[in-house]
Amino acid sequence: MNQGITEAQFLDQYNPKDYDSPLMTVDIALFTLHESTLQILLVERGDHPHKGRWALPGGFIDLKSDTELHDTAKRKLREKTGVDVPLLEQVNTIGNARRDPRGWSVTALYMALVPHAPTAEFIETVKDARWWPIDEVRKLPLAFDHAELVHLARERLKNKTAYTVLPIHVLKQPFSLTQLQQAFELLMDATLEKKSFRRRILNAEILEEVGEGVPEGGRGRPTALYRPAKNSEQYLFTRVFGDAVSS
Amino acid sequence: MNQGITEAQFLDQYNPKDYDSPLMTVDIALFTLHESTLQILLVERGDHPHKGRWALPGGFIDLKSDTELHDTAKRKLREKTGVDVPLLEQVNTIGNARRDPRGWSVTALYMALVPHAPTAEFIETVKDARWWPIDEVRKLPLAFDHAELVHLARERLKNKTAYTVLPIHVLKQPFSLTQLQQAFELLMDATLEKKSFRRRILNAEILEEVGEGVPEGGRGRPTALYRPAKNSEQYLFTRVFGDAVSS
Repeated sequence: MNQGITEAQFLDQYNPKDYDSPLMTVDIALFTLHESTLQILLVERGDHPHKGRWALPGGFIDLKSDTELHDTAKRKLREKTGVDVPLLEQVNTIGNARRDPRGWSVTALYMALVPHAPTAEFIETVKDARWWPIDEVRKLPLAFDHAELVHLARERLKNKTAYTVLPIHVLKQPFSLTQLQQAFELLMDATLEKKSFRRRILNAEILEEVGEGVPEGGRGRPTALYRPAKNSEQYLFTRVFGDAVSS
Repeated sequence: MNQGITEAQFLDQYNPKDYDSPLMTVDIALFTLHESTLQILLVERGDHPHKGRWALPGGFIDLKSDTELHDTAKRKLREKTGVDVPLLEQVNTIGNARRDPRGWSVTALYMALVPHAPTAEFIETVKDARWWPIDEVRKLPLAFDHAELVHLARERLKNKTAYTVLPIHVLKQPFSLTQLQQAFELLMDATLEKKSFRRRILNAEILEEVGEGVPEGGRGRPTALYRPAKNSEQYLFTRVFGDAVSS
């Protein structure tokens, strides 16, 4: 093929529309903790296909304005939900002939865990986008293969929580160790043993004590309150909580 | 948009070529251990663009024959190198406007670690595909952003080795603990302490002793030889070797 022509000549006559190519999208699973539940952000589809169904926010690459794939993810999240997230993590890329009735389709799935309060403010300005408790999402008929995408992102969140100090950055500050343990348990979908949880967290030196709050249950000793220590963002547990393992 | 038409009508008039879409490819980083080095499989490009440069095997999705994205990866690897790999792991998906001179391009990067001997037999039948020691690859001018893709796959391989018993499945059987430690060290690009390595491996009960070989260095006690125990494939270390951490 292409014998005797230069690369410049080849590129000059190259037209991507001469070839069949798949649909290429991004989808974003945005999680938060609110009212003691893990919640995920969904949008109600306004257009065909799967009009009227709830779906992860996402969409097509804009070849003119998006520089990188993760720019597409950030832009789509902002446009569809009003939420601006500094860092999105790629979970997986799924492609097949079945997932979209328009044809062979590939989607790059991203996720992030964000504090609840600031996003809620933004979301009020956007129609048809809302936080759903993760247990209710299981009962919704989602668009496309988004039930499977939600599951993949949820599993990544569980594993990630077991290895990192993620939860200390999404809780409202200051927080108690009881609140922090609840956050870890919600994110990992697991029950942790109180004593060993506290020992591991305090030994890790990722928290800074900032004062005392009202006693738990209203009586007894005041509760110590914490916020993330400086440099805690780089901290990774090298031993997992419970039985969670990396995939 | 699409007011007043049914989903069937919408799909009937939908033509993906009405929209600009990126190039969508897969690339595969295939690693092996051979002659005490970590090696990676590259192919010499026969066509524009970047004709004559070495690249990871890969290519475009065939919308008619590929059912899933990983089928594309397996097919491309087979066509371009003769290697058939049962399981490919997705590393990451990279997309931007710079990586391919033909335009906005997305690639899903896959990787696998395979035993050396069987693949070498296949590769001899395929022109322009060869194993390169990883240290030599760093000096080659690779096509596209493949130097970066090789780096990403290499990092994944390091982390994966720290958490799994991957190396016991790619060594020629039976093997000694010294050979196994060398394999872990090559894959992790790290030096491991002999005593604690042996203790962890033997405690994990992933090996089955199958006999004795010649003494190391030719004299002294015979060397115990091992092969993977049944069910060892599911084993994940829950504590890492050395300082390696999950990303």
